[in-house]
Amino acid sequence: MEQALAAADTAWVLAAFTAVVLMVPGLALFYSGMLGVKSALNMIMMVFGGFAVTAVLWVLFGPAAVLGDSVGGLGLIGDPFTDIGLGSLLEEDPDGGMPAALTAAFHLLFAGITVAIIAGGVADRMKFSAWLVFSGIWVVLVYFPVAHWVFAFDDEEAGTKGGWIANALAAHDFAGGTAVHMNSGVAALALAIALGRRRGFPHVARPHNLPLVVLGGGILLFGWFGFNGGSAGGANHTAGVVVLNTLVAAMAGLLGWLIVERIKEKHATTLGAISGVIAALVGITPAASLVSPLGALLIGVVSGAVGCFAVSWKFRMGYDDSLDVVAIHLMGGVVGTTLIAFVATAAAPAGVDGLFFGGGIDFLGRQIVAMAAVFAYSFAVTFLIAKALDKIMGIRVDTETEMRGIDVPVHGETAYVMDSFSPTGPSTLRPEVFAEDRDVIVPKS
Amino acid sequence: MEQALAAADTAWVLAAFTAVVLMVPGLALFYSGMLGVKSALNMIMMVFGGFAVTAVLWVLFGPAAVLGDSVGGLGLIGDPFTDIGLGSLLEEDPDGGMPAALTAAFHLLFAGITVAIIAGGVADRMKFSAWLVFSGIWVVLVYFPVAHWVFAFDDEEAGTKGGWIANALAAHDFAGGTAVHMNSGVAALALAIALGRRRGFPHVARPHNLPLVVLGGGILLFGWFGFNGGSAGGANHTAGVVVLNTLVAAMAGLLGWLIVERIKEKHATTLGAISGVIAALVGITPAASLVSPLGALLIGVVSGAVGCFAVSWKFRMGYDDSLDVVAIHLMGGVVGTTLIAFVATAAAPAGVDGLFFGGGIDFLGRQIVAMAAVFAYSFAVTFLIAKALDKIMGIRVDTETEMRGIDVPVHGETAYVMDSFSPTGPSTLRPEVFAEDRDVIVPKS
Amino acid sequence: MEQALAAADTAWVLAAFTAVVLMVPGLALFYSGMLGVKSALNMIMMVFGGFAVTAVLWVLFGPAAVLGDSVGGLGLIGDPFTDIGLGSLLEEDPDGGMPAALTAAFHLLFAGITVAIIAGGVADRMKFSAWLVFSGIWVVLVYFPVAHWVFAFDDEEAGTKGGWIANALAAHDFAGGTAVHMNSGVAALALAIALGRRRGFPHVARPHNLPLVVLGGGILLFGWFGFNGGSAGGANHTAGVVVLNTLVAAMAGLLGWLIVERIKEKHATTLGAISGVIAALVGITPAASLVSPLGALLIGVVSGAVGCFAVSWKFRMGYDDSLDVVAIHLMGGVVGTTLIAFVATAAAPAGVDGLFFGGGIDFLGRQIVAMAAVFAYSFAVTFLIAKALDKIMGIRVDTETEMRGIDVPVHGETAYVMDSFSPTGPSTLRPEVFAEDRDVIVPKS
Repeated sequence: MEQALAAADTAWVLAAFTAVVLMVPGLALFYSGMLGVKSALNMIMMVFGGFAVTAVLWVLFGPAAVLGDSVGGLGLIGDPFTDIGLGSLLEEDPDGGMPAALTAAFHLLFAGITVAIIAGGVADRMKFSAWLVFSGIWVVLVYFPVAHWVFAFDDEEAGTKGGWIANALAAHDFAGGTAVHMNSGVAALALAIALGRRRGFPHVARPHNLPLVVLGGGILLFGWFGFNGGSAGGANHTAGVVVLNTLVAAMAGLLGWLIVERIKEKHATTLGAISGVIAALVGITPAASLVSPLGALLIGVVSGAVGCFAVSWKFRMGYDDSLDVVAIHLMGGVVGTTLIAFVATAAAPAGVDGLFFGGGIDFLGRQIVAMAAVFAYSFAVTFLIAKALDKIMGIRVDTETEMRGIDVPVHGETAYVMDSFSPTGPSTLRPEVFAEDRDVIVPKS
Repeated sequence: MEQALAAADTAWVLAAFTAVVLMVPGLALFYSGMLGVKSALNMIMMVFGGFAVTAVLWVLFGPAAVLGDSVGGLGLIGDPFTDIGLGSLLEEDPDGGMPAALTAAFHLLFAGITVAIIAGGVADRMKFSAWLVFSGIWVVLVYFPVAHWVFAFDDEEAGTKGGWIANALAAHDFAGGTAVHMNSGVAALALAIALGRRRGFPHVARPHNLPLVVLGGGILLFGWFGFNGGSAGGANHTAGVVVLNTLVAAMAGLLGWLIVERIKEKHATTLGAISGVIAALVGITPAASLVSPLGALLIGVVSGAVGCFAVSWKFRMGYDDSLDVVAIHLMGGVVGTTLIAFVATAAAPAGVDGLFFGGGIDFLGRQIVAMAAVFAYSFAVTFLIAKALDKIMGIRVDTETEMRGIDVPVHGETAYVMDSFSPTGPSTLRPEVFAEDRDVIVPKS
Repeated sequence: MEQALAAADTAWVLAAFTAVVLMVPGLALFYSGMLGVKSALNMIMMVFGGFAVTAVLWVLFGPAAVLGDSVGGLGLIGDPFTDIGLGSLLEEDPDGGMPAALTAAFHLLFAGITVAIIAGGVADRMKFSAWLVFSGIWVVLVYFPVAHWVFAFDDEEAGTKGGWIANALAAHDFAGGTAVHMNSGVAALALAIALGRRRGFPHVARPHNLPLVVLGGGILLFGWFGFNGGSAGGANHTAGVVVLNTLVAAMAGLLGWLIVERIKEKHATTLGAISGVIAALVGITPAASLVSPLGALLIGVVSGAVGCFAVSWKFRMGYDDSLDVVAIHLMGGVVGTTLIAFVATAAAPAGVDGLFFGGGIDFLGRQIVAMAAVFAYSFAVTFLIAKALDKIMGIRVDTETEMRGIDVPVHGETAYVMDSFSPTGPSTLRPEVFAEDRDVIVPKS
């Protein structure tokens, strides 16, 4: 019975894991479509590259650092040296529980996606080599500890200690509002500031391919049910409530963003609709097991509305967060993490009451401490990494590369070639590009 | 044991639900790619917008209206006032059965997708605000009752009464051939007639992006295994037969459409191939648990062939069903719902024989009554809603907007910007569009 | 208990099956984006068409030929006449095990995808009718036997005999490194040689849409977790290890390809990144249950690096393998199938030691025999089929069609129409194409 229940849980987490995998190309295309056509491929490379670097480091010591026994029981970081190479994951649980390899693979996706989200803040101007190095350092120095704080629970049976936010503080974050979304949002802000604005900001290219943005965002919507639903840990009542809440919030976020945008900007845009969906998905991430469908509706609509207001901050304050990682991931995370202190209900699977249902004000206090800690640590360490890397290797592309767009100079490619080798005559569009990187495909003779 | 089996069922329905979620962007892109480039975003907005409105209404009272106890035991509509806000879904089943929240979330997808399908009939000319209002009224007045008729079964244990088609009539519709596909197909026809033809019809824009159509259609193919497979209610023998039949039918539909098209039009087109797949998926939807793989092959090939013939009806009869919702959804639903009265076999999971296997002619009669009822109700109520809305707020965009394409005037965006802010000189393509909505992205200074 | 465990396994295999379905459009778009814009649709049609032909033949006698009792116990081919029409799949297992219909549906995907992969070798020049006929003959004469060799295991309980590679030889191929990837890679080589080079080779069109390639490749990455993970046969420890290994290998492959490319070609390209991911996914396919995460890392990085080297072979040797099926599928299959003889570890679920962990040299010998057999059989029979078809019906399009690109002459469509019916004036781009196939959509009056 136990074993059969565990097998059913495993079946769902395997499916959830698979759905989350699609978020990697989903995020790459969501971001890429929002950029001008001349750096569209570079963004794809940043997302996949940052994810790949994370995967390699994860195999070396990731699961132990995030989910393992806290060094000194302090709740700051798991001991990374307890399972180098992940060999222990090959051992089958004799009781037939959830495979440890699957848990490790699921958390690898969380780590890699968190890194990849950051790329949205620094489009069009970062050196690809510096981004790869940054990714590796950041995931180890920032993501691993913060994820340990939030995702590692004390395990009395195994005698291990988890992270301080999850246990000592006991703040609530169901699936990563702080560890994933605030963390990456803050890091994007710090890196964008360290890197400086794009030339010409705020007069930057408009999104070159909005159907691609909708596709990428739609894939993120899909994968999020694996992300949140899989975080229930099995095929259970919690997972059912979580997916319902996640869907309701996402759609409320679309409406929340569009209403504000229509009033503020006179147009309800496709970019706004899909941004509202993502902002609300971020907002419901920490909250999905703690609220009722009506609570999810509220969190969704507020996340969307706040996101729409927050996109203009960068223009007023002058930081070039290229793809609004602050408005969507940081602010979505803040809205969701904060609102659960109000709208959580003990009737929901997590069984905690927020202020509106008779819970205490200390709940809100704990949420604020968790957010402040993640904000401060992530901002400070990210900024230091960026500045140090800039000293050592330079983190910004040269002016000519930035003016031309990164794709041709750095990657030797253009995203689209709609007219090459035309049978009705040679193309007249961008011939200099064709001549230049033709030999990427055609061999040098 | 019971509980472990229920957990396995839950695992599959969670995964199926997740797959169906991707159908929302899939449908949006499938439709969008078939339109000219100047209303491509508006269609995406209609699909997502109609879905979002449905989601909000669903949270208020959807599950009770569709799946709840029939008002007065008449089988016409569930009592919508029994679970306002869906709070009851937070209660865990003490026996560990399928989470009620998951069932509610799964049916929300059905409702929202049915609404969104209608948008394909009225592309390029409907007011976005009127579409949102229409969506909300239609889902309540048409979808909720019709879905109750077809999907709500009497539950003796709980002492509740379901819909008249499922119970009193006992017609067969496995996963929505009538309630989802005929219903939306008929509604698209009624709304297209109420709205009138596009200017210039039948000389309309060709599909602007066929790879996008293939992608959207491919995503629909994928999601359909969640839609049909999840309708088996669990990880069981029925689900296995259903997914095999669904796959076989889809591929037979591709061949059926292409053969007719090759003979009739001299070309086998990509648009035909993917249309054949979708038509056949519609056809197998009511039938998937009732037929053998050979029966599925037949239903698929006939659905595809009939669809290919039916696309020309609109030109002959003069209604502008822009994206052939009638040919694909209405006719696919009719083909599948009718053919099961002939090719159903008691060897299949549903255990009913059609005419070819010794079943009675009354089977066909019941199918026809179900189809006629859905057709008549959906057409009449949809037409009335459309006409009333037209009186109250107007449902059609003005002439200038229609001529320019809806994207720029209404949403302030163009789907693609392939050449903006070029480092090798300013773009010369469509500069008037850039000047016009540049400030969607760039802040007003 | 048994039954509940089987239901959990069924839940995961249903979800895995669903994920693999998306690989069909994924492969179509991955391939299509790599081609010039004038044959982009033809490639999509080849992938879907080859898959559809496979599906129909599969319903007639596929499962028996691949998985059924070997004719004469020779291990060469299953008896195809034991279940014509697949009626036996409707019978429910009284013990509640994995539904036979699901297993048959899962293997249909393997067969159809193997056929579709071949299309990448012969882009831009094959007659569509000849491709459909080739697909049907090839899947029966080549795929069915080779899949039987590799995937059909002896079943003592049922008293049936399986294929010679799986049993008599006992070579290891977890999920199709030989039967799927080497098989299709070799067939693509043979068909490309039989068909001859494209005019102008090696000066061929560059990829027309790299974001589409990334999308298609990203979908393949996603589906691969269904492909490999589902091959574990259930929601178990093996599946957990398999998905972790698959993810790690894929990301290592990206890095392996990019490192070689950066050194060799001076640019790290998006096409290289996604090619490295796919090459590594191929490489880990035969190995996923046999190695540790570090072994997966090694297989991934080597598959990616070897693939990057292998793409230049066609230029040196002069065969026009249009989309590098040899470099990615054939060589990926060779690398993975070979390396497991070295890095397999008994600690992994399959429980076999390779040379590095004290295993015998005979392991390597068995792998080589399996590869040599698949290579020789697939090459010879594919080449003969191609040559025979060329005699009978011709397999290559005429010169004019090839020069114009296949889409308009054969399918009557262009992939993109970005400027038709512009409100600001008629398009000046490619007007001859518009005039020509406008009546695909607009009815002849």
